[in-house]
Amino acid sequence: MPSIVNTSRVAIVGLGQLGTSLALRLKELGAREVLAVSRRDDSLRTAVERGVIDAGSTEAADILPVVDVVFLCLPLTATLSFVQEQLPHFRFGGLVTDVGSVKGAIVRGVRPLLQQHGTWFVGSHPMAGSEKSGMECGRADLYQNAVVFLTPTPEDEPDAIELLATFWREIGAMPIELDADRHDLACAHSSHLAHLVAAALVRAVLGQGDVTANQQACAGGFRDVSRIAASNTDMWTDICRHNRPALQQALAAFQQELTAAGQALDAQDWPAVAAFLASAKAQRDDWFTGYAKARGTPA
Amino acid sequence: MPSIVNTSRVAIVGLGQLGTSLALRLKELGAREVLAVSRRDDSLRTAVERGVIDAGSTEAADILPVVDVVFLCLPLTATLSFVQEQLPHFRFGGLVTDVGSVKGAIVRGVRPLLQQHGTWFVGSHPMAGSEKSGMECGRADLYQNAVVFLTPTPEDEPDAIELLATFWREIGAMPIELDADRHDLACAHSSHLAHLVAAALVRAVLGQGDVTANQQACAGGFRDVSRIAASNTDMWTDICRHNRPALQQALAAFQQELTAAGQALDAQDWPAVAAFLASAKAQRDDWFTGYAKARGTPA
Repeated sequence: MPSIVNTSRVAIVGLGQLGTSLALRLKELGAREVLAVSRRDDSLRTAVERGVIDAGSTEAADILPVVDVVFLCLPLTATLSFVQEQLPHFRFGGLVTDVGSVKGAIVRGVRPLLQQHGTWFVGSHPMAGSEKSGMECGRADLYQNAVVFLTPTPEDEPDAIELLATFWREIGAMPIELDADRHDLACAHSSHLAHLVAAALVRAVLGQGDVTANQQACAGGFRDVSRIAASNTDMWTDICRHNRPALQQALAAFQQELTAAGQALDAQDWPAVAAFLASAKAQRDDWFTGYAKARGTPA
Repeated sequence: MPSIVNTSRVAIVGLGQLGTSLALRLKELGAREVLAVSRRDDSLRTAVERGVIDAGSTEAADILPVVDVVFLCLPLTATLSFVQEQLPHFRFGGLVTDVGSVKGAIVRGVRPLLQQHGTWFVGSHPMAGSEKSGMECGRADLYQNAVVFLTPTPEDEPDAIELLATFWREIGAMPIELDADRHDLACAHSSHLAHLVAAALVRAVLGQGDVTANQQACAGGFRDVSRIAASNTDMWTDICRHNRPALQQALAAFQQELTAAGQALDAQDWPAVAAFLASAKAQRDDWFTGYAKARGTPA
């Protein structure tokens, strides 16, 4: 079977960490042609010079009509406005996806427009990326063994879904289909809540009280707990905004757990504190064993 | 100046991750003699076979009288009871320290006993170790460039403090003197609170709701935020217990931050959410730059 990556012309819209990593990997796999759209001419020039992409333009109209597959690698709000503004230029019969962390708002905002235009849209969300951002942080192996959620609707064409899944598999990722709203609730817990919690922890430790002593007392544990608090602020505000109800639900679940821990502490109920910590350890150990195994990394 | 490590006979009480790492490093530095006390005969045999220690005994009375410096590498409650039970065997004029995460309870519980006995005690707390535990996780470089808090009281002999600081410096760590209560409040924030928060997050994500989808949605961010939730449960219950008031204060500070984030979210006040995340990022970036520089690792 011919490789889909090698026979497709691909456009990447946005050359941040995710878009750049995708381009690097597609070039590594010998993709037929990797084009890019970016607002910044200097980013495009740098990307071409480094062989990250074959060519690019600041004008979507130059690129979108001539490609088979479009990956929208923009922040959420920018993804919504890009599709609205550039709709006439998407190719009839082409396939469009995105890499956004929230899928309900994207699928509801983007899919009907593209469908009416005769272009397929299926949302993607690769569970990849770091607290860093920008082209400099792109890595060809960013998606290797990463889960990529695909969030098709029941009305989507099975062929379009399968094409997209195959694409991600060739890239090295693990596509998993999930309903968009169920996805958003899951990511609200495992990712968006985690970012909010990390930020609140940093502010409680480094933003008030005996900051000098607290800074000295921060070591490897704090370093890892707080890493994602260093993420791009605008991007994460955007995510909170587009996934608010799910994030509120996750936050309530977390506050309930924290209250339980605080009550056990207040009551000096040490068996209850031990049980609280032990169940968390068991759940985390269980999850991590599977996570590490799927990625071929040591547990 | 002759090396203090090389001219001292040292006893390590407890061959977990911290005790084993200390022994490995002392042997690497060519320490005169590294002895150990452990409840477990098989641990001692293994440690001797592997060259981790020179000799050991399950009986403290065999070891304590013949060494210059004792490192108590036990959980907090065990440290307190070990000193109470073995007090007659500590050498007159010798120096004793510990590696516990809480210093007020240890200094108040141990120091008067040892002082009355004619033995020096100054508390240490190396900011080192991981979520793993046991001899297998010992590493000679565990303390390299790690902060080690020393918590002397105003009545302690400056020579004893300086001896201990020199000892840690020779090992490769960075000793910093801090009042025990101030230390406990700082560690309550930067470490003990972080453990409680990580455990509460794990329970909110992997212990309730759509666990299957949540597990799939857990990636690198969650992996790092939750790492310390896999720590030894008994050890951390013990820490919570011995540092309760400080931990309650830290938890209150964190809950206040989290409430502020939740209120901004409820009010859909996106500039406030952005400001919340931006201040956390600035505080974390600022801390990490100094942390990475002091340890010679890339920021």
